[in-house]
Amino acid sequence: MSNDNSTAILLLSCPDRKGLVSEISYFVSNNGGNITDLDEYVDQEEKVFFIRIAWDMKDFRIAADKLHETFTPLANKFNADWEINYSNVKPRLAVFVSKYDHCLQEVLWRHKIGEFKTDIAAVISNHPDLESLAEHYSAPFYHFPIAKENKAEQEKKEIELLYELKVDAIILARYMQILSNKFVAEFPNRIINIHHSFLPAFIGGNPYKQAYERGVKIIGATSHFVTDNLDEGPIIVQDIIPISHRDSTKDLVRKGRDLERLVLAKAIHYYLEHRVLVHRGKTIIFA
Amino acid sequence: MSNDNSTAILLLSCPDRKGLVSEISYFVSNNGGNITDLDEYVDQEEKVFFIRIAWDMKDFRIAADKLHETFTPLANKFNADWEINYSNVKPRLAVFVSKYDHCLQEVLWRHKIGEFKTDIAAVISNHPDLESLAEHYSAPFYHFPIAKENKAEQEKKEIELLYELKVDAIILARYMQILSNKFVAEFPNRIINIHHSFLPAFIGGNPYKQAYERGVKIIGATSHFVTDNLDEGPIIVQDIIPISHRDSTKDLVRKGRDLERLVLAKAIHYYLEHRVLVHRGKTIIFA
Amino acid sequence: MSNDNSTAILLLSCPDRKGLVSEISYFVSNNGGNITDLDEYVDQEEKVFFIRIAWDMKDFRIAADKLHETFTPLANKFNADWEINYSNVKPRLAVFVSKYDHCLQEVLWRHKIGEFKTDIAAVISNHPDLESLAEHYSAPFYHFPIAKENKAEQEKKEIELLYELKVDAIILARYMQILSNKFVAEFPNRIINIHHSFLPAFIGGNPYKQAYERGVKIIGATSHFVTDNLDEGPIIVQDIIPISHRDSTKDLVRKGRDLERLVLAKAIHYYLEHRVLVHRGKTIIFA
Amino acid sequence: MSNDNSTAILLLSCPDRKGLVSEISYFVSNNGGNITDLDEYVDQEEKVFFIRIAWDMKDFRIAADKLHETFTPLANKFNADWEINYSNVKPRLAVFVSKYDHCLQEVLWRHKIGEFKTDIAAVISNHPDLESLAEHYSAPFYHFPIAKENKAEQEKKEIELLYELKVDAIILARYMQILSNKFVAEFPNRIINIHHSFLPAFIGGNPYKQAYERGVKIIGATSHFVTDNLDEGPIIVQDIIPISHRDSTKDLVRKGRDLERLVLAKAIHYYLEHRVLVHRGKTIIFA
Repeated sequence: MSNDNSTAILLLSCPDRKGLVSEISYFVSNNGGNITDLDEYVDQEEKVFFIRIAWDMKDFRIAADKLHETFTPLANKFNADWEINYSNVKPRLAVFVSKYDHCLQEVLWRHKIGEFKTDIAAVISNHPDLESLAEHYSAPFYHFPIAKENKAEQEKKEIELLYELKVDAIILARYMQILSNKFVAEFPNRIINIHHSFLPAFIGGNPYKQAYERGVKIIGATSHFVTDNLDEGPIIVQDIIPISHRDSTKDLVRKGRDLERLVLAKAIHYYLEHRVLVHRGKTIIFA
Repeated sequence: MSNDNSTAILLLSCPDRKGLVSEISYFVSNNGGNITDLDEYVDQEEKVFFIRIAWDMKDFRIAADKLHETFTPLANKFNADWEINYSNVKPRLAVFVSKYDHCLQEVLWRHKIGEFKTDIAAVISNHPDLESLAEHYSAPFYHFPIAKENKAEQEKKEIELLYELKVDAIILARYMQILSNKFVAEFPNRIINIHHSFLPAFIGGNPYKQAYERGVKIIGATSHFVTDNLDEGPIIVQDIIPISHRDSTKDLVRKGRDLERLVLAKAIHYYLEHRVLVHRGKTIIFA
Repeated sequence: MSNDNSTAILLLSCPDRKGLVSEISYFVSNNGGNITDLDEYVDQEEKVFFIRIAWDMKDFRIAADKLHETFTPLANKFNADWEINYSNVKPRLAVFVSKYDHCLQEVLWRHKIGEFKTDIAAVISNHPDLESLAEHYSAPFYHFPIAKENKAEQEKKEIELLYELKVDAIILARYMQILSNKFVAEFPNRIINIHHSFLPAFIGGNPYKQAYERGVKIIGATSHFVTDNLDEGPIIVQDIIPISHRDSTKDLVRKGRDLERLVLAKAIHYYLEHRVLVHRGKTIIFA
Repeated sequence: MSNDNSTAILLLSCPDRKGLVSEISYFVSNNGGNITDLDEYVDQEEKVFFIRIAWDMKDFRIAADKLHETFTPLANKFNADWEINYSNVKPRLAVFVSKYDHCLQEVLWRHKIGEFKTDIAAVISNHPDLESLAEHYSAPFYHFPIAKENKAEQEKKEIELLYELKVDAIILARYMQILSNKFVAEFPNRIINIHHSFLPAFIGGNPYKQAYERGVKIIGATSHFVTDNLDEGPIIVQDIIPISHRDSTKDLVRKGRDLERLVLAKAIHYYLEHRVLVHRGKTIIFA
């Protein structure tokens, strides 16, 4: 891997103290890097420091494959959680779906036109319905039927496949199964779901019906990381659209589709550009 | 009261059947009225008919003070809930407040510049703080301190005052007391509250703190009619604004103020223009 | 064609006078129709009456193929512009494209999942690039290369094809050619364009570049009927998204794509549901 | 002035080169400052570096009154445009108005409740109408009637007053006079206007009437710095609201008022928090 034409992106959080920006930015510039983007945030209540810093790898004197090792002493000194990614290394995604096509369609299309810098390692489904859509976009399709009695076994196979395919993150694109805690624990903060309500309103099943019955004047969608607690993971993106008394549950489903597609796409976009940090059940988005 | 320069506005709901629009509009035109605005909606699930119809009273051959009587037979035939209002008869409002001034300021200012066609019959508060604001806008201010032991008694006096002042509707402009079921029962679908969340999320106390802790990416405000069940009445208007991890609870309070003011104002606007019908816990808004 | 399971939708405008709603609704109910939706609007400045009225054809005593003739005397009496459409007769669309796929993709996908009740009669392009996309959705593709010297001739052939295919409306889904006045005159208020700015800002070429250079904080998209004057036709739908100084022209193109897709889709939706009237260069949208 | 409880905010732009963040942040931390907020942006097309950096002055070893001098050599080395402000030093504003009260009301109210950390040095008007509003909020009111023949003379007096009052920035809160180029030249990038359209649409007089006549489906408001060219200065904030064919010009004025108030308030908020940089006719907003 050449440094040329690449940008390094460091995401780091640690207890706040003086001199953090100075020491980190010195590390970059002292090694010949030119910072192109830097965003920093300090949680004043908890005294935690968060930073996203991107620099041009051209002329940077540390090779990408040595950088992790070289930066480790500084990170250890700060007692930091951190990762470095490179703009020319594409994250690998697996997309989980059931029967609804709109979110999968959106992800595959954005990948195809070059908007999502990613490799679609797999489309995984508990139903065969969307195989032809995956094929149309040349994405490998895997069918894992899930029933009560084989769920644990199937999830085990899915996990093996995901490791084999070196998947970085999993997108639940309206996947109608609840993942077991065991599965979720394998991919902490790496499973992105789209829920069709403005959480925490309308947790659980059929949120459009719940919204219709409550008579709300807006409906929403929420993209979040999956945790053990259903619909309670760290929120990445939310948005809403106005509705009226004229909208039936069916209208909400139709209007909500557009929202779901765009909210999920925005969350994936942030993830792929390494703009998301998770801290104590919430996200910091360096947008 | 002269018919001239006035518009009559009929709000009506009844079981759906054929010929409703025809018979109602015939009633208007046969008596010389020119319909200026008509909006009709049929709830197809429950087969209920809703209509808002406005007509020019100029040249209308029934005087305003005889119209209710004249229309009654038709309404009875349809088994309808209905009311007729006139654009030149201003609804009378009482505004309940505590210490926050932003919603009261908004209501009084809109009244002053002529945007709200209403009479502000009273500003009622459990604290004396906003008396000078009421005075600045020449609105009568009444102070009813509320404590656990005098609440029932004070509410009784408030109700008497409201009847004495011939108040049509009550606006809870960030009033920090919960009205008793007895009080609410006196003014069904005539008490408008502003709640500082996108209901049904964050019901109850301190929704901005709840929002901060959950890490949502939007905050909202909801204006609704008050019923016996806290924050569960029919929703009139909702809106949201985006927030980010940078926003502290204090920032949410600040940003939310703008939302609360505008959402409440919009709900009052609909009410004053007789655009709101309530049916089975939800609203029909003829916007 | 059976009347069963169909809804008739009348769109009508005429000089305002008393009794219009009454006479029209009487026509419906007297013939056994049940009105399911009615929206009326009077332009008070110009004294023009507009109405959209929908009724259930079940039990209606006039057959759909006789209805136009039967209604004509009343329409003539009112000196009205009018049309009646039926929910079970799908409008036929031709979609014009060049090389960008996002708007075509959106239209064909919405058609496929049943959201657009329409027949896609043709996809017409001056380039061959999107043929495979059309094929994927089984839409007939026609390639009409346009050059300065053959434009008049090619447009003539396109018009012939459109008549042959009985096309009701033409969607310019980022079609990068300007249609001649002659072409436009064949389909008055039946050509729907998507322009990638909030008109009237940034008329003409490359609006995203214009937006970038001006330093606006929002970008928009506008769907409008095409007239002789470029980008000046009646506006159907507009929407915007916020941008910032961080967005390059390329980012605006990317963000704008989502807007263009949704704004165009919404305009087509209104058209297919017969919710759009045009009057003196502006639209009335019975949304 | 004590350093305690104060935050220093540096706004700086200069030609991009390596090491800028490192040297600036080292200057802060080496002198005992703790960076609480840092946002950096590089215009990759023009290779210009922009930064906003805030640090806690507690324990900072350079006193506020020496800081400008101490930082100058570094700034000169970078060939930078820069300013340092302190959170405990309030910018002083003059608000120019004519007869509309809504924007002035908004500014004075936000100041009163402590949301705007500013001193209102003067309310200046060409009409006497809003004197009582200024008085209500204890803001000094100055009446400068403007006529064709005395305009130059009156502006001269206004400028003298503004210098005398040590005004930092001027807010045109729906001021209905056009300032002369001479006046504008005295306060470059320090005069903030609110224009009632989404610029560059509807430049000049009566934008709501223009909007009504064009039949747009959204109206907007734009807050921008004033330059010699009317309505063409750098844009700070823009927002819009949806409208429909039902809205008369009068409705647009009413709906637009809410937008104008909030857009102007947001722009002032950014200014008071030192979040705005101007570069080549556009703004960088470190929001």
